[in-house]
Amino acid sequence: MDKERISYHESVQKMYERIKKDNMTNVWDRYEAQGIGGVPDRRCTFCMAGARCDLCSNGPCRSDAAKDKRGVCGITADGMAMRMMLLRNVMGASTYHYHTDQTIRTLRETAKGKTPYSIREPEKLRTFAGRLGIETLGSDSEIALYLCEFVEKDFNRPAYEPSRIVEILAPPERKKRWEELDIFPGGIYGEMMLSTSSCLTNVDGYYASLALKAMRLGIAMAYQSQIVNEYCQDILFGIPKPHTMRVDLGVLDPEYVNVLPNGHEPFLGFAMVQLARKPEWQEKAKAAGAKGLRVIASIETGQEMIQRWEEDDAFYGFTGNWISQEAVLASGSVDLFAADMNCSLPVAPLYAEKYGFKLMPVSELIAFEDITERLNYNPVEAGRQAAKLLNMAVENFKNRKNSGEPVLNLPVKEAVVGFSTESILDALGGTLDPLLDAIKSGAIKGVVGMVSCTTLRDYGQDVHSVAVVKELIKRNILVLSLGCGNGAMQVAGLCSPETREFAGDSLKAVCEALGVPPVLSYGTCTDTGRLADFLGAISAVMGVPIPDLPIAAAAPEYMEQKATIDAIFALALGLYTYVNPVPTVTGAPDLVKLLTEDCREVTGGVLNVEKDAVKAVDGIEQHIMEKRKKLGI
Amino acid sequence: MDKERISYHESVQKMYERIKKDNMTNVWDRYEAQGIGGVPDRRCTFCMAGARCDLCSNGPCRSDAAKDKRGVCGITADGMAMRMMLLRNVMGASTYHYHTDQTIRTLRETAKGKTPYSIREPEKLRTFAGRLGIETLGSDSEIALYLCEFVEKDFNRPAYEPSRIVEILAPPERKKRWEELDIFPGGIYGEMMLSTSSCLTNVDGYYASLALKAMRLGIAMAYQSQIVNEYCQDILFGIPKPHTMRVDLGVLDPEYVNVLPNGHEPFLGFAMVQLARKPEWQEKAKAAGAKGLRVIASIETGQEMIQRWEEDDAFYGFTGNWISQEAVLASGSVDLFAADMNCSLPVAPLYAEKYGFKLMPVSELIAFEDITERLNYNPVEAGRQAAKLLNMAVENFKNRKNSGEPVLNLPVKEAVVGFSTESILDALGGTLDPLLDAIKSGAIKGVVGMVSCTTLRDYGQDVHSVAVVKELIKRNILVLSLGCGNGAMQVAGLCSPETREFAGDSLKAVCEALGVPPVLSYGTCTDTGRLADFLGAISAVMGVPIPDLPIAAAAPEYMEQKATIDAIFALALGLYTYVNPVPTVTGAPDLVKLLTEDCREVTGGVLNVEKDAVKAVDGIEQHIMEKRKKLGI
Repeated sequence: MDKERISYHESVQKMYERIKKDNMTNVWDRYEAQGIGGVPDRRCTFCMAGARCDLCSNGPCRSDAAKDKRGVCGITADGMAMRMMLLRNVMGASTYHYHTDQTIRTLRETAKGKTPYSIREPEKLRTFAGRLGIETLGSDSEIALYLCEFVEKDFNRPAYEPSRIVEILAPPERKKRWEELDIFPGGIYGEMMLSTSSCLTNVDGYYASLALKAMRLGIAMAYQSQIVNEYCQDILFGIPKPHTMRVDLGVLDPEYVNVLPNGHEPFLGFAMVQLARKPEWQEKAKAAGAKGLRVIASIETGQEMIQRWEEDDAFYGFTGNWISQEAVLASGSVDLFAADMNCSLPVAPLYAEKYGFKLMPVSELIAFEDITERLNYNPVEAGRQAAKLLNMAVENFKNRKNSGEPVLNLPVKEAVVGFSTESILDALGGTLDPLLDAIKSGAIKGVVGMVSCTTLRDYGQDVHSVAVVKELIKRNILVLSLGCGNGAMQVAGLCSPETREFAGDSLKAVCEALGVPPVLSYGTCTDTGRLADFLGAISAVMGVPIPDLPIAAAAPEYMEQKATIDAIFALALGLYTYVNPVPTVTGAPDLVKLLTEDCREVTGGVLNVEKDAVKAVDGIEQHIMEKRKKLGI
Repeated sequence: MDKERISYHESVQKMYERIKKDNMTNVWDRYEAQGIGGVPDRRCTFCMAGARCDLCSNGPCRSDAAKDKRGVCGITADGMAMRMMLLRNVMGASTYHYHTDQTIRTLRETAKGKTPYSIREPEKLRTFAGRLGIETLGSDSEIALYLCEFVEKDFNRPAYEPSRIVEILAPPERKKRWEELDIFPGGIYGEMMLSTSSCLTNVDGYYASLALKAMRLGIAMAYQSQIVNEYCQDILFGIPKPHTMRVDLGVLDPEYVNVLPNGHEPFLGFAMVQLARKPEWQEKAKAAGAKGLRVIASIETGQEMIQRWEEDDAFYGFTGNWISQEAVLASGSVDLFAADMNCSLPVAPLYAEKYGFKLMPVSELIAFEDITERLNYNPVEAGRQAAKLLNMAVENFKNRKNSGEPVLNLPVKEAVVGFSTESILDALGGTLDPLLDAIKSGAIKGVVGMVSCTTLRDYGQDVHSVAVVKELIKRNILVLSLGCGNGAMQVAGLCSPETREFAGDSLKAVCEALGVPPVLSYGTCTDTGRLADFLGAISAVMGVPIPDLPIAAAAPEYMEQKATIDAIFALALGLYTYVNPVPTVTGAPDLVKLLTEDCREVTGGVLNVEKDAVKAVDGIEQHIMEKRKKLGI
């Protein structure tokens, strides 16, 4: 297979050779087997177009907008495509909020002193509680408990009662628009129920109504799930601050016991690092014949961790994003793969058997064929659970060597990670002015929030994300990267100071003055809410509504359902939103027109879809220049 | 089109001719256009088999279990099929619970005296509250408020805290089994989130785990959503008691102002009947040139109403189930179609334009293309909303005549409706003994709960449901009918005392002695929970676990997502569950084996799939006879 079709990263290209040699099923071959356009296995054109439905027993149905051919119930192609997109959005919202629920559970038990965690950021606790109008007199624990109670009450509000969290956190101009559109949301559970129920056969078949419901759900999710989640994780585990981090597959050294927490929830990962940093655990690993014990960050659980905690020999580095997963597992260096709520491939058991590592689901969400042992995260058990997992890893080390030769000499790079609203302000000297001045002067033309995954649809892993971001910074557009796309940037070397050489001259100068890279590593996809809150702050300081700012959202390689609701939320927020691959809505002409044109008149946001990186950035730049012109800067 | 392919009912067959003459899109032609097996429009074999997925941007993917061909992420055909089924189940649970949420909202506002409703069944309020361990001292209003608070607290419980409602209401033997299987649920919102999140790409790809999650969700839904909903609706609107009701399309008389509340929620329907029974509203209709004003029950909103309230000239009768919808709308006799949360076809606006009726969404769930006016149900506004709707209907009457000739001389029949646990006990003289004695003696061989919709997949509307039920009663098996399948029985004439002639001799004798038909009209699909509670009571009295009772569940024409979760719940309850059409899981061999064989060892329930009515009943009868043998009766 052409190397560029595999991955941007040499490490992953190299691992693909090993995986092929070992005759293992892998994401690249499975992608090819599904077909890239050729008979007999070409992709279904109805599925590609979103013009099909299999929800009820009168179906499966196919629709054709040109002929007004409808499903048996009478739904149009537009209705089918948007309904399925709304369902995907519910899945994304649900998974985001599942994480939030576990974070609040963890914060509550921590406040009660029942977990191995502590309140690391009492100031942020007080600031956030104060912002929400919660009592801030009392101990940290008391305030944390008030906060938990307050947010859970809001989550449980019915859809017909406006969310207090959204009322407090969202920008006034946006709230007004959302009220006018009747998409100001209630509590997240009620909103998920409203959207899901609307998708039932013979309930809401109107694409425009379904699209508005998707935005409404996106707003509830961003403010209630994402912001609350990340801020409470900051309170528990620390606000991200810039620091360097080892990245790429070379962080895996077969001589060490390597433990990989994987998914999206960092709770057990942090608990394991706390233990691994103790000499007794290093000794245990050494007694088993290893050089030591390392917790290795991986995918989004890893991203949550590396943004907040500095590297050392026990918390060693970050592997990559989800398409790296089989490459990581085939390295022969993994002892324990602890799978939490997200991003664990169904083929992991086959890899565990072949490469001799222990595969352990640590969330009730996760299950693998024929893996019966599990250890569902529970905050009050987290200390014991972390110890159990580390013991499993140490135990595994002894036997791992019988599972073939590990792959050696994989590359290691260095990335700067840990940008957050607070740390950006710190870097700017405590005020947004230097950033805003640079934007006003044109030194920074605009800012793009790149929230993305990685997908094989059009290119190899991260190839298109890297191309888009390089093109953006070349044109003096600052990039904040989030999600698996952030992992792409880190491993591709774009989150390092040296990347300034790819940047346009004026952006380069600003970054040199501030000592930052032109791509700021801003967190996971869950940090979309954090970014929205940051944009709200910029909008307030500048006195300019969000849709009028010279900014854009970009998802060059979105993959799953969290990404789709992020994109819909970006539209609700009024952003120009670039996405690739082409969403499965092309058979829905009215919906396509709504998303890519008419939405401008609805929320101010608009969707742009484009496979070519240069053309994609042309569109973004044009939008930014129009906004600059409108602002007279 | 062959008449039997259209419908069992002559009225609908006749209306099809009119619809064709008027050149209107309709469910039968749309079904045919999707193909019944022939090229070029044959149904997609991958969709039919459940062996496909379009959730993420690496797809759409097709799988093949025989070749171990997987989706790009690595999910198997079994995983794909069960994941999509679980998603459908979440949609069903969500819609059921949306209704429950609105019922509790209505009960609370009624207790506060803010609605046009009252607490009609204070005794049931106290019995149900007492059963739940709620304080029953105090006024009806106070107890109702305690009840609302208690159930909402349970709904909001996280998935990791056992539901009190399930703990209290479910049979001990079942609870024990569910605990062993780790499928004892928490609160319904948390359970929906758990299931939905599990369906995300790369989360739970294991069909067996997904199937257990579906059962867990089904248990939460049946006890928390369905039972609470129906019992609280009983408290507000009356416990169903047997009475006769006019049914079939002839209940539509063009000389009257005809108002059709449609969907699943009876709130505005009841409020409109209350007004329509007042002389002033009849006078208004007469002033507009009509003979009077009638509220006509339709589909499941209608079913909720006719089970509880007796017919008169203001609440005139029941049209039929969902496939009758276009036939109803094309009758030329409809003035107002008030669409609540369920079962309104997307083509309704086309019919409204052609046949001159007012189409009004009355739930935020419902939307139609290009219909912007709406009136979302709000209990504290219900009186005014009902009046507004009736005014719209009266207003419409004047113009309706310009919309072509109405269809005259459609048939009207009489059905006995209104069986419930309480009214069955009443019919039996206050004790279950006569029923149990009849079962023990073999006069009644067994009991089947027929919870079904109607679908065109294999036969015309209701054709297969009628065939199955006739075969069941012929073999002395008593049938309780629920859902749109109950509407099928009523309109087909099977819920009338004369139906005894189709029954086997011994069943006939029992029914004659008790003065009931052999098909007991037991409510809507939401009454599945009520039936489960009834079975729990029978199980307790007999001292026999539910899976050992000579009973079965049947869904001869299931259609949508509420039905699929009812079927999965039936499996969790330990029932032999007959379903048709063949679910879209045939490409998932391990899943098929789990559902149709291995499930016996898991919950005691098992799925049977069969297109032929006689063979289907052979299977049910064989199961019942095995259970009788085991019980020694």
